[in-house]
Amino acid sequence: MSNKMWGGRFQSGPDAIMEEINASIDFDKRLWAQDIRGSLAHLAMLEKQGIVAAADAKAIADGLEVVRGEIESGSFTFSRALEDIHMNVESRLAAIAGPAAGRLHTARSRNDQVATDFKLWVRDTIDDLDAQLKDLMTALAERALAFSGAVMPGFTHLQSAQPVTFGHHLLAYVEMLGRDRGRFADARRRLNECPLGAAALAGTSFPIDRHATAKALGFDRPTANSLDSVSDRDFVLEALAAASITAMHLSRFAEEIVIWTTPQFAFVALSDKFTTGSSIMPQKRNPDAAELVRGKAGRVVGALVGLITMMKGLPLAYGKDMQEDKEPAFDALQTLSLCTAAMAGMVRDMVPDLKRMKAAAGSGYATATDLADWLVRELNLPFREAHHVTGRLVGIAADAKLPLEKLSLAEMQAVEPRIHQGLFAVLGVEKSVRSRTSYGGTAPANVKAQARKWLKALAK
Amino acid sequence: MSNKMWGGRFQSGPDAIMEEINASIDFDKRLWAQDIRGSLAHLAMLEKQGIVAAADAKAIADGLEVVRGEIESGSFTFSRALEDIHMNVESRLAAIAGPAAGRLHTARSRNDQVATDFKLWVRDTIDDLDAQLKDLMTALAERALAFSGAVMPGFTHLQSAQPVTFGHHLLAYVEMLGRDRGRFADARRRLNECPLGAAALAGTSFPIDRHATAKALGFDRPTANSLDSVSDRDFVLEALAAASITAMHLSRFAEEIVIWTTPQFAFVALSDKFTTGSSIMPQKRNPDAAELVRGKAGRVVGALVGLITMMKGLPLAYGKDMQEDKEPAFDALQTLSLCTAAMAGMVRDMVPDLKRMKAAAGSGYATATDLADWLVRELNLPFREAHHVTGRLVGIAADAKLPLEKLSLAEMQAVEPRIHQGLFAVLGVEKSVRSRTSYGGTAPANVKAQARKWLKALAK
Amino acid sequence: MSNKMWGGRFQSGPDAIMEEINASIDFDKRLWAQDIRGSLAHLAMLEKQGIVAAADAKAIADGLEVVRGEIESGSFTFSRALEDIHMNVESRLAAIAGPAAGRLHTARSRNDQVATDFKLWVRDTIDDLDAQLKDLMTALAERALAFSGAVMPGFTHLQSAQPVTFGHHLLAYVEMLGRDRGRFADARRRLNECPLGAAALAGTSFPIDRHATAKALGFDRPTANSLDSVSDRDFVLEALAAASITAMHLSRFAEEIVIWTTPQFAFVALSDKFTTGSSIMPQKRNPDAAELVRGKAGRVVGALVGLITMMKGLPLAYGKDMQEDKEPAFDALQTLSLCTAAMAGMVRDMVPDLKRMKAAAGSGYATATDLADWLVRELNLPFREAHHVTGRLVGIAADAKLPLEKLSLAEMQAVEPRIHQGLFAVLGVEKSVRSRTSYGGTAPANVKAQARKWLKALAK
Amino acid sequence: MSNKMWGGRFQSGPDAIMEEINASIDFDKRLWAQDIRGSLAHLAMLEKQGIVAAADAKAIADGLEVVRGEIESGSFTFSRALEDIHMNVESRLAAIAGPAAGRLHTARSRNDQVATDFKLWVRDTIDDLDAQLKDLMTALAERALAFSGAVMPGFTHLQSAQPVTFGHHLLAYVEMLGRDRGRFADARRRLNECPLGAAALAGTSFPIDRHATAKALGFDRPTANSLDSVSDRDFVLEALAAASITAMHLSRFAEEIVIWTTPQFAFVALSDKFTTGSSIMPQKRNPDAAELVRGKAGRVVGALVGLITMMKGLPLAYGKDMQEDKEPAFDALQTLSLCTAAMAGMVRDMVPDLKRMKAAAGSGYATATDLADWLVRELNLPFREAHHVTGRLVGIAADAKLPLEKLSLAEMQAVEPRIHQGLFAVLGVEKSVRSRTSYGGTAPANVKAQARKWLKALAK
Repeated sequence: MSNKMWGGRFQSGPDAIMEEINASIDFDKRLWAQDIRGSLAHLAMLEKQGIVAAADAKAIADGLEVVRGEIESGSFTFSRALEDIHMNVESRLAAIAGPAAGRLHTARSRNDQVATDFKLWVRDTIDDLDAQLKDLMTALAERALAFSGAVMPGFTHLQSAQPVTFGHHLLAYVEMLGRDRGRFADARRRLNECPLGAAALAGTSFPIDRHATAKALGFDRPTANSLDSVSDRDFVLEALAAASITAMHLSRFAEEIVIWTTPQFAFVALSDKFTTGSSIMPQKRNPDAAELVRGKAGRVVGALVGLITMMKGLPLAYGKDMQEDKEPAFDALQTLSLCTAAMAGMVRDMVPDLKRMKAAAGSGYATATDLADWLVRELNLPFREAHHVTGRLVGIAADAKLPLEKLSLAEMQAVEPRIHQGLFAVLGVEKSVRSRTSYGGTAPANVKAQARKWLKALAK
Repeated sequence: MSNKMWGGRFQSGPDAIMEEINASIDFDKRLWAQDIRGSLAHLAMLEKQGIVAAADAKAIADGLEVVRGEIESGSFTFSRALEDIHMNVESRLAAIAGPAAGRLHTARSRNDQVATDFKLWVRDTIDDLDAQLKDLMTALAERALAFSGAVMPGFTHLQSAQPVTFGHHLLAYVEMLGRDRGRFADARRRLNECPLGAAALAGTSFPIDRHATAKALGFDRPTANSLDSVSDRDFVLEALAAASITAMHLSRFAEEIVIWTTPQFAFVALSDKFTTGSSIMPQKRNPDAAELVRGKAGRVVGALVGLITMMKGLPLAYGKDMQEDKEPAFDALQTLSLCTAAMAGMVRDMVPDLKRMKAAAGSGYATATDLADWLVRELNLPFREAHHVTGRLVGIAADAKLPLEKLSLAEMQAVEPRIHQGLFAVLGVEKSVRSRTSYGGTAPANVKAQARKWLKALAK
Repeated sequence: MSNKMWGGRFQSGPDAIMEEINASIDFDKRLWAQDIRGSLAHLAMLEKQGIVAAADAKAIADGLEVVRGEIESGSFTFSRALEDIHMNVESRLAAIAGPAAGRLHTARSRNDQVATDFKLWVRDTIDDLDAQLKDLMTALAERALAFSGAVMPGFTHLQSAQPVTFGHHLLAYVEMLGRDRGRFADARRRLNECPLGAAALAGTSFPIDRHATAKALGFDRPTANSLDSVSDRDFVLEALAAASITAMHLSRFAEEIVIWTTPQFAFVALSDKFTTGSSIMPQKRNPDAAELVRGKAGRVVGALVGLITMMKGLPLAYGKDMQEDKEPAFDALQTLSLCTAAMAGMVRDMVPDLKRMKAAAGSGYATATDLADWLVRELNLPFREAHHVTGRLVGIAADAKLPLEKLSLAEMQAVEPRIHQGLFAVLGVEKSVRSRTSYGGTAPANVKAQARKWLKALAK
Repeated sequence: MSNKMWGGRFQSGPDAIMEEINASIDFDKRLWAQDIRGSLAHLAMLEKQGIVAAADAKAIADGLEVVRGEIESGSFTFSRALEDIHMNVESRLAAIAGPAAGRLHTARSRNDQVATDFKLWVRDTIDDLDAQLKDLMTALAERALAFSGAVMPGFTHLQSAQPVTFGHHLLAYVEMLGRDRGRFADARRRLNECPLGAAALAGTSFPIDRHATAKALGFDRPTANSLDSVSDRDFVLEALAAASITAMHLSRFAEEIVIWTTPQFAFVALSDKFTTGSSIMPQKRNPDAAELVRGKAGRVVGALVGLITMMKGLPLAYGKDMQEDKEPAFDALQTLSLCTAAMAGMVRDMVPDLKRMKAAAGSGYATATDLADWLVRELNLPFREAHHVTGRLVGIAADAKLPLEKLSLAEMQAVEPRIHQGLFAVLGVEKSVRSRTSYGGTAPANVKAQARKWLKALAK
């Protein structure tokens, strides 16, 4: 077979195919730092337990530092024949440290080694993401504080429903992202058990101290079952599930940005830092960054689906299928990181058109609910009856092409005689939002307090 | 259009189509108990806050109890024209309690009402699932204790790798399910904020007490942002993500049961309580229950994918798309519940063939690692050299079609002169498992202690 | 275990669980008509081949007709103890026709029987869907013809890019749906091989005539490999893949309807046949049907994912996991049918606001491309240079807050001296669309011709 | 933000983020050959239509050939600042060919250009995959012919059900792959319409000849609607859906290989070309290639899910979200290609243990169906009664731990007096498979004929 996709590479037969399908070094080299960190912790423990002599341990540790330096400086040569990052490092170590190097792999196996490396990577990445999400939340809360009283339409079904404030809308995303951070934190806490020392799958007869390696690597404790230790990829799946929900949140906001930046809405504008022109239409400002954030959500979900499908029917303990765990995790979490950065940039960049937003908030009889609520509160009408009266008043106003507050008292009393002048105090979008003082409601004072509360919490 | 799928139902035109696509009562009637619970809490608060008079509140509460009775007894008539459970209950309430009924919907909207009902349902279901998972873990731990010393092959790549004990294998699933319960518990904790009082999306001007309704319904606190309250479905997604991972665990065990019950493996047998015969082959015992548990995992993942795809690009706050949240959640969580019950049944039912398991554990030179480790430990060979020596000894044994322990000392010394009689103390599967005493290792004493620890924790 | 989800049903132990997980009659009874059709074809063949005597065949056929009548009239009692539709029918047949009934199952098995029934159902459903998609295409093409010259903005990035006609936009969906029908037709053609007679998995020693049963049931031929016949579910997956792509198309159009019906766009209006009001805001007209069409796309994709995940690792031939194939297929294809009906209704119902559309088409310098193209065509400027000149002219117009056609010739010549009066002939949205006469372009004459071509093809 | 994932790259602010999220050159450079091919076709048409002068056309064509040479030789410098492959090529062309280069982009846009390039790539890839699938089918059919009479157990529920032949089993996959090729062929045929000339979305006013470019690029015709042309990604989705089903088939076979190569089954052996040893257990032969084929199926499905999720709610025409179409398509189709190559290698490499297979086929009373069928055929028992008699005979044999054919005639007649010596002619696995002569059945003669038929068809 000599198809173009492989440029004839497979003509040499099975060996080329096997190397192509089996070697993971092209992607798992990303774990090099975690691999060395894990080896150093394992080594220190082996020495302390008397399993490896001090001189050998020193030679190995020094050798690992050399390897680290080579990789950092870019002078390390990764080899596909050596398959994966573990063998690449070990092979180079042997060349540097001599036969002593062969003692490093005592009481461990590639199975617990890769599980440890990958857990460390996922943990590091969660920490990075947490910092980014915090940054995005801060950007949102800051702008929410600045716009705590700016009125805009609150939408249901993308139809204007009731006025809200722009700050209130932004804080809704702070709530979502707060839950997202919670999910990542829970995932981090749950994964924080160290598989190192589970060996191939059964544990080992060497007198190792797994609590020591766990502690040295920042884990809360060692894993409790060696079979589970090497066959578990829950930590990836849980991180990807959290990432999928976060990506969905970002995609929702991105969708709003795309809609809000249309000339028809024109609620916000983005600078050309986050937009592009067109090769053929010089006047356009396309919200590319927002569209990409929206589009990339699918990719994160796809990674989750791929991984859970892969794991779904695997007997214990390790199966080679599990080598398929890394690429989607690397890609999806890096994608989420990029989307979070882009969204934080857009939140800081966007300029709202407060006048248009307020005008839109007032159209479509969006204060009808205020009127209905007034009828209940002041005239003690049952809610459903107040709803009915309001409907009739809106109908009259709509026929006359007038906003509700432009109906005369007489016109209103013709529908419900008990209506009095006091009603006019609740009509109008500013009045409407100010009245929504229930906990969590959109009243500017609420929004301001909530934004400050978040900023204080985020500053910690 | 008169196709068979709809039996000509749509010939009457748009109304029939709209009712079919819009009405949710066929599935959301499942929320009736939560809907009444929520209404009663809302009502009590309205009365306490002086928003609804005592007499009206009494009439409404009595009316709701009548509705509850009718639904429980099966005499309630659900109507598609009334669209959903909320309007069905409210309409019947109006007929029973008269105009006062119209006051119940004060300061709330269907948007916060449905979010509250659905959260209550998901929370109730998580509690049920938690009890079931606990039961399954107990079944596993009990059997793990009973078989803490029963030797079986530990597999990697479905090839025998090292001997482990059956109890150890079962405890691996206890670990997984323990994490699953943790995920559900985290989801429950995170969802436990009450949306009631967010109203349509902006909060309300009525002097409601959201902390009171939250408390009355068992929530930790009210939600903090009214827009988020009605547009959030994270609680469903997080529960489905947890369910997907749990279903994947059950599917892995189911796969093992399917393989173990083949005549080729014959490691365990299931009674006819969980197997079926064939309509044409009277001698077969098919592991149907295990296959269905395995097959149903796909369904749970499908529900998660469908839901996150649906939410992915929705602007705030409520969109009608979100009506699509319930059926997959009902189906997936009920499916998981059924699978958990079936798996608990199978765990209690299965009879292992300890002799076959032990024999299989000993084949294939599965104690080669023990030999290599002995060379490292006793002769201080570097691990990689010990590995090499072991390979040569296995080769000699394989050529002679002998197990390792049947090689003579002389044959061994021909490869590595320092080998002495002590080596024979570590060969043999029983010796192998007994030696794996590292934390989390498969040594029977470890397994026994671990099983007891779990049983004690689960008994609480 | 007595959790609420099962109402204590499982307290009676394993039997209740096994019945719950194993019985399929609750959903596969939908296959009753296909089951009887298949049995009658099998029976006729058995008789013709001399495998069943004429008298027995008559008794069985008469009995099957009685069963059919009972199910049609609603008097048939489905029993969970009899597990599935096949055993329910067979058992009732035995009661009606006596011992002769036992001859019907000669030379077949439930494995080939269920594959045949399910294929027949999928085929019938594809035929129904095809008729519905044709109806929707007709509705689109009719309206495209009516609005072949109605100018609206053509969007990229949801920003106005170039003027197009509303008819042209509608025809884009006709193209998509045309491909969808092609996919379903290909799936139908590919599935149209009859599994009946594959028996359990190996074929049979009875002298059956599979070509005869295939023909009798409208299949093109019998399947060629008995193992594949009973383990194949490609026909469901391919139908669900086609359905997913179709649902995605409908979802795209639904998204447009949701955006177009906002007050900000107000390009089209839907009557209250496909919209709803709000329980609290009497003035709203929510595009519920469109939102549901958009939301339900996730569900169809979820079904595909669930099913392919289920099949992914199954050894041949039949596994009980495959019982999980029916519910998602029933649900997803019925969902698509409903969405198609709703969309056809909306297409016929929607009233475009041609004035607003045209005004929007002209804003944002959407004819800049026409200017650039004129510079290339008439002045022979290289495209990239023409692009540059256009950009400068748009900048000047934008600074002056004028449309391009309101710039004076002098102002234009200041940028590019060779510009002459002829340029004004291409500015303006009507002129723009009329000029796009390339094949597939938006010129009204093109659109009219294309709509007529489709209507003619669809009328066949 | 300076997290490790980006190595501080984003500290320089929005520009770095925008470049990272927006630039596609890192992956779309793979389209370089298609991009040049498309440009040359477009150019030839422009010249023929008199839109570009001959001298300019020559300069551009020569320049494009220079670019091609540079890319092929590796001397081309790809630039992220130029965003994508189209601008990279165009920019270099301008440097080579001077201002004339600016004429190439006349009457096209990046929107139709990228759609054309990507379609060409998908089409090329489908052609490559088709050749690979054909090769795999040939390998399977050759081995099926060689083993047309080799008896093995036919499984349902992974329990031995009835004897089949190994050749018959292999041919089941030939059928599946035949359908897979059909799906790819249909996808290819459906995609084979050329979008070039749709321009940005509305067509163009230049007198282009889209039929000419379509023909030059091997398309059947130009696309019929310019909006659809640039917003359509059905061709990717359909190819990924076909790939997902194919990957599922390969995964099923891979699962079988994993099970068959266990010591417990030991039905087939793979050489070390497709297996690996373990770093700690020298005796193991792990079926890594098969496991990876199985594991990678999840990845292909994940790509499909990601892409359809991305497209699901996009308004027409082009949205930047669609830039997310390429990476999953590249990855998934290349993955499928690799898996197909690996599977073809394994099929040619695997050595079946015919003795073990045959022995397994005979165990478990797998010929009970033959006995039941004999009772129907020879004694004219109704099928259900024959089933009952067979069950009793199997029970007697099982109690006596004898195979069915070792029961005496007397023992048999005790259950059913009409049984005579002739029965023994159908018992035994060889007799069983020989008797299954129905069309598609497992009789060796059938298998041989079917294998030859396929080989003949594949040789074309």
